[in-house]
Amino acid sequence: MSQRLFSVGFARHFSRCVVASKPRASAARAAAMSTPNPRPSNPQLSFPCLEKLEQRSQSLVENGPEPAYAKITEDKVDIFRSTDPIFLDYGGYLPQFQVAYETWGTLNSNRSNAILLQTGLSASSHAHSTAKNPAKGWWENFIGPGKYLDTDKYFVICTNVIGGCFGSTGPSSTDPSDGQVYATRFPIISVNDMVRAQHRLVKQHFKIDRLHAVMGSSMGGMQCLAYAHEFTDEVAKVVSISGCARSHPYSIAMRHCQRQVLMTDPNWNKGFYYGSLPPHTGMKLAREIATITYRSGPEWESRFGVERADPSKQPALCPDFLIETYLDHAGEKWCLEYDPNSFLYISKAMDLFDMSLSARTKAARSRQQTEARYNGEYVPDSELEYKPVDQCSFDEPMRENKRTRRMTPEEAAEDLKRGLAKLAAKEVLVIGVESDILFPAWQQREMADLLRQGARERGGDGSNIRHVELSKEDSFYGHDTFLLALDHIGGPVSDFLEN
Amino acid sequence: MSQRLFSVGFARHFSRCVVASKPRASAARAAAMSTPNPRPSNPQLSFPCLEKLEQRSQSLVENGPEPAYAKITEDKVDIFRSTDPIFLDYGGYLPQFQVAYETWGTLNSNRSNAILLQTGLSASSHAHSTAKNPAKGWWENFIGPGKYLDTDKYFVICTNVIGGCFGSTGPSSTDPSDGQVYATRFPIISVNDMVRAQHRLVKQHFKIDRLHAVMGSSMGGMQCLAYAHEFTDEVAKVVSISGCARSHPYSIAMRHCQRQVLMTDPNWNKGFYYGSLPPHTGMKLAREIATITYRSGPEWESRFGVERADPSKQPALCPDFLIETYLDHAGEKWCLEYDPNSFLYISKAMDLFDMSLSARTKAARSRQQTEARYNGEYVPDSELEYKPVDQCSFDEPMRENKRTRRMTPEEAAEDLKRGLAKLAAKEVLVIGVESDILFPAWQQREMADLLRQGARERGGDGSNIRHVELSKEDSFYGHDTFLLALDHIGGPVSDFLEN
Repeated sequence: MSQRLFSVGFARHFSRCVVASKPRASAARAAAMSTPNPRPSNPQLSFPCLEKLEQRSQSLVENGPEPAYAKITEDKVDIFRSTDPIFLDYGGYLPQFQVAYETWGTLNSNRSNAILLQTGLSASSHAHSTAKNPAKGWWENFIGPGKYLDTDKYFVICTNVIGGCFGSTGPSSTDPSDGQVYATRFPIISVNDMVRAQHRLVKQHFKIDRLHAVMGSSMGGMQCLAYAHEFTDEVAKVVSISGCARSHPYSIAMRHCQRQVLMTDPNWNKGFYYGSLPPHTGMKLAREIATITYRSGPEWESRFGVERADPSKQPALCPDFLIETYLDHAGEKWCLEYDPNSFLYISKAMDLFDMSLSARTKAARSRQQTEARYNGEYVPDSELEYKPVDQCSFDEPMRENKRTRRMTPEEAAEDLKRGLAKLAAKEVLVIGVESDILFPAWQQREMADLLRQGARERGGDGSNIRHVELSKEDSFYGHDTFLLALDHIGGPVSDFLEN
Repeated sequence: MSQRLFSVGFARHFSRCVVASKPRASAARAAAMSTPNPRPSNPQLSFPCLEKLEQRSQSLVENGPEPAYAKITEDKVDIFRSTDPIFLDYGGYLPQFQVAYETWGTLNSNRSNAILLQTGLSASSHAHSTAKNPAKGWWENFIGPGKYLDTDKYFVICTNVIGGCFGSTGPSSTDPSDGQVYATRFPIISVNDMVRAQHRLVKQHFKIDRLHAVMGSSMGGMQCLAYAHEFTDEVAKVVSISGCARSHPYSIAMRHCQRQVLMTDPNWNKGFYYGSLPPHTGMKLAREIATITYRSGPEWESRFGVERADPSKQPALCPDFLIETYLDHAGEKWCLEYDPNSFLYISKAMDLFDMSLSARTKAARSRQQTEARYNGEYVPDSELEYKPVDQCSFDEPMRENKRTRRMTPEEAAEDLKRGLAKLAAKEVLVIGVESDILFPAWQQREMADLLRQGARERGGDGSNIRHVELSKEDSFYGHDTFLLALDHIGGPVSDFLEN
């Protein structure tokens, strides 16, 4: 080829960082031709986004990790302690546990006005400011005197789920059996396990025999179904917002990627990072992927389009488009705010959520067997719903990828209908959002349809099951609608709670 | 709490790996009570998926990385070499380059039957088997005598894009200016740059003045628009399958996460991993995220549902659900098959793809200025379309996330229409797939609408623009439909090419 060399203009165009002086074109060309260390055709790209991650690691090493969640104490929240063990759906147990909770409003004398508010994956019990903690809560404008969740009428209880990191027992807690942090010796938990822990607070601490309502959004929408199923006679009304009756493979796929990204951060160290450098990069990336599922393409089209943050600069592999800087910011905000192990366990619990009769029956049987073994009763392996776990030889992922589902979609729908039948006599409000890609609107339609079928099979007319779907015009905020479009969610909710 | 201890059954249930003998319940309880090293409540979870990654690293260190793409030689493909530099849309240049290509069928005497087939992100030129390489190509059953792309009639040319790693010049190539591998000193490239490289093959090597058609799927659907725009008189027909006229923020968001995951793999080493341990973990994860966008929820619902691979085992944080093992397998297949840097650059080129008039004009101006500077002409900074890149001070991602788009959606649509106007007099076939979430059907509808508007503004009736949309009944394979539902794609394509 003709080995043409850079003109100074071209060289300067690309090499501002390394070329301090500006010799004239002919001089530069001559210099380049005689140089023993030829210059590359183009400059090295820069990666400020990676340098920032390194700086954070350095700073955490020097100043020590101080995760925000570690600061949650009884100064800020109330704590319910259960000294009896809890046996879990998937064969594990907690010898004791605590649940962080907050309340708003006043429990009436016959204890009939309580609403248990259940949270999404990353939320604390701090749904609204309290005397102990005046910071705004995640549903600050939804809860309060005269608000949609009217504390002049209702006594609202919100907990941090077990498995979480905001005061409830989770992977960052100490295992009382050996005095060490649980880390990934924490047992796999289910949404059902979360609600059975809440139930002890409701029954043992507050002595409430029947809740006016259980309600929640996202994973909270899963919990309220699980609670009403497990404690059918102790719940009057159920409000499931942007929830589902079982996860679907797209959501599992997205959460799978988040978990894998976190677990492959070398700092995750198979879950044993407490007191050392936390996997902040993995957490940041996991949150970025999650954020994609929390909002929607139409919102981003409207806010960001496909514009670059600074179109006058050369494109970069680090965040460059407006949408990238948005995701980057979402990851930054979260990477030290939430315990990575809690994220893994609770994300997994969402995947495992399944209101099908077969899943509920299996879980109940598994817990009973675990408890029997705990109490020294002999349960032969052959009778265990779950075969004894041989963790050392867990299956390799199927290499040939030929395995497919065993139950047909029709059988699975019937199974789900039978599981939901226990709820079909309740007052249920199901809210879905058309722009939601994580818990898509068809899942709420399916839930409402199956509940109505169940109601009719019990001789009812199905009018106890209400279903509201927010159109794209009502909200294009996707899954996060319940945090953003309060009026569209709140109207149907307060109406349902009162009538 | 009552410090109740494990029964042997329970301990064995969880601790098969560490408990060799099976003492009776009472003996175990007594032993546990007196032990100086108490047992944890639950066993440590195991992570075979992470161990496998470590084993791969170990094996690559011991046996040396042997990436499949490094084996592409002239024994397998043809190579076109251009010894003239190519100046790029975003200010960089390649002093020389090569394009790997393959052909099927026979070029007729008046050179009028050639079809340039353009590929998606990760594809090689091997669309169909050849005498040199009898392995099946990625469109083996689409191309051939009497097939949809009928080699009895057409001379089909397919190239590996520049920036790629299957024989064309890309980041894994040697920079002739200094004899070192480019790595991330490779310049940012655009889809437009790719087609201008292909054009040299078509014009200089094959002496073809006018292609019967340009066609491609996914990024190939971007390329055919870019080619027809850049070389308007040298193309008769355009077939864009599952493509778009510009990327949209959801797609950019998904690709952003893939890139960040790859770039944060410590083995990526800012792009300089050649000859050492490649970032196979980052590549695997990036492919897993990408795979989510290539298929669709309905397909997974049908194939996998929410079933676990082995429901008799305890749930795991490593791949567990069928959908997870599917994604894991997709990542495994790819993690050493494709150059990570090529993935980054080509993924970025897709994000930057924009047929708007302003984008096309800016790119052309930038190239001219780069060429002028290269030739020693003085171009003051103030006249540069792109300000000189100061890579050392690239903007921090916006912390406050307050910046939003500058151009309204309506202005952006008008800009796009004006960019597409050059194609509006051509015969164009646009194919979209309703189940596609990466290049959603509305983008193909938008493209067809804007082209038809352009055609009418030129006095035509718009009948030169054909649009086909595959319903969810036709294909629920999402973006990958063009690889899977050949009959639904092929019928309209062969009909359009012939009539």
